[in-house]
Amino acid sequence: MTRRRQIYEGKAKILYEGPEPGTLIQYFKDDATAFNAQKKGTINGKGVLNNRISEHIFTLLGTIGVPTHFIRRLNMREQLIRQVEIIPIEVVVRNVAAGSIVKRLGIEEGTQLPRTIIEYYYKDDALGDPMVADEHIACFGWASQEEMHDIADMAIRVNDFMCGLFAGIGIRLVDFKLEFGRFFDNDYSRVILADEISPDGCRLWDMTTGEKLDKDRFRQDLGGEVEAYQEIARRLGLLPEGENMVLDLDKHRKSKGK
Amino acid sequence: MTRRRQIYEGKAKILYEGPEPGTLIQYFKDDATAFNAQKKGTINGKGVLNNRISEHIFTLLGTIGVPTHFIRRLNMREQLIRQVEIIPIEVVVRNVAAGSIVKRLGIEEGTQLPRTIIEYYYKDDALGDPMVADEHIACFGWASQEEMHDIADMAIRVNDFMCGLFAGIGIRLVDFKLEFGRFFDNDYSRVILADEISPDGCRLWDMTTGEKLDKDRFRQDLGGEVEAYQEIARRLGLLPEGENMVLDLDKHRKSKGK
Repeated sequence: MTRRRQIYEGKAKILYEGPEPGTLIQYFKDDATAFNAQKKGTINGKGVLNNRISEHIFTLLGTIGVPTHFIRRLNMREQLIRQVEIIPIEVVVRNVAAGSIVKRLGIEEGTQLPRTIIEYYYKDDALGDPMVADEHIACFGWASQEEMHDIADMAIRVNDFMCGLFAGIGIRLVDFKLEFGRFFDNDYSRVILADEISPDGCRLWDMTTGEKLDKDRFRQDLGGEVEAYQEIARRLGLLPEGENMVLDLDKHRKSKGK
Repeated sequence: MTRRRQIYEGKAKILYEGPEPGTLIQYFKDDATAFNAQKKGTINGKGVLNNRISEHIFTLLGTIGVPTHFIRRLNMREQLIRQVEIIPIEVVVRNVAAGSIVKRLGIEEGTQLPRTIIEYYYKDDALGDPMVADEHIACFGWASQEEMHDIADMAIRVNDFMCGLFAGIGIRLVDFKLEFGRFFDNDYSRVILADEISPDGCRLWDMTTGEKLDKDRFRQDLGGEVEAYQEIARRLGLLPEGENMVLDLDKHRKSKGK
């Protein structure tokens, strides 16, 4: 097998050149980082679960007409995606106060926000991903005003859909992060949903117990990270009742090794 | 003389009950603070200069149709103003990178911004006046969307006017802060410009030498604070050539004391 050309390595994923021009392969690692990569660790099997969860949600979003970079899942850790030019803005949608907004605006964690907030953060590790407003995005040309209009519209649609999806499985969608990219089709470009949607970038609380089923288990040293991610996959119908995707992966590896 | 009722004491000003309902007296102190009041000091005569400079600019803004709280100057340190309900948002207009944006977005101080930026900060000393976006203002009801529309329009008009005013006297208007308030007229309320416009809340650089003629002299321990404020007043035609308003004030006091 010829070595694939690596295009980019991020904190939780690697992008490789795809089989066709305009495609990439997105590989999900088990690496976990938090607090602008000041905290690092590994969650065994996370990549497998996120690949599956993100496939599921992106596929569903496609069916309601939200354009995404997802083409198809290739294997346990990889998916085929459309190549896009990533817009350097993290879009955070908040329904309930948690994370940075708690301290920044002095709101108690868990407070239902009077209305959904969309926040924008400039993707720049060296600057610590500072929060920015539409004004800065326009000033520095990170995205056009038409693109930001499309992004805000899509973010609200994704939020509406995901609030429903998670409410249906007894989970409160507290907040989540989206990334978007420019997909070029001849001379024309349009903004589509990129990156991933998984417990790495969402806050997901059990509606009954309030238990955190997301990366805050890692950020806050709560333990049981992979069990939380598996619980999300299981409730989404992606794991047969009682089965454990990570153990299955090990089984798969062992049988191949024979 | 009966003691006037104090309504509010801020870092640089005191508000007293005015002579008529719906009016207040705004008293300009010499106190200076910076970095969310972590640095404190006194700039002798600053209050006298700011009272005069703010009177001048608010009067001019009134003539171009920007509604303000200013009614008339009463004496060296006091002006009569309309009572408003202050909107808890500091509106910062930036033409050139300086101050917090330099570090936050990694831009070199003095860089002309590709376009003017309006930023909003939530007025809350305990939280350190965090930057917020329209989304947060709408979510928490700090101002209505109509009010924010009027505020953005007025901020741009004030910037256009002040860029011209200061360019005419060889000064680069780098950035400045505005505050707005709700003025109630029977059941009807409208947003008008409040607070003050002075070298306390503006960055003003000499166009030729680049010299800072504003509160950064205090923030950065550059010295010559009062001379810088006087230079602004002098160029605005508020001090006769060669005269010194602060010394005049002392003269006035001495002659009264006789």
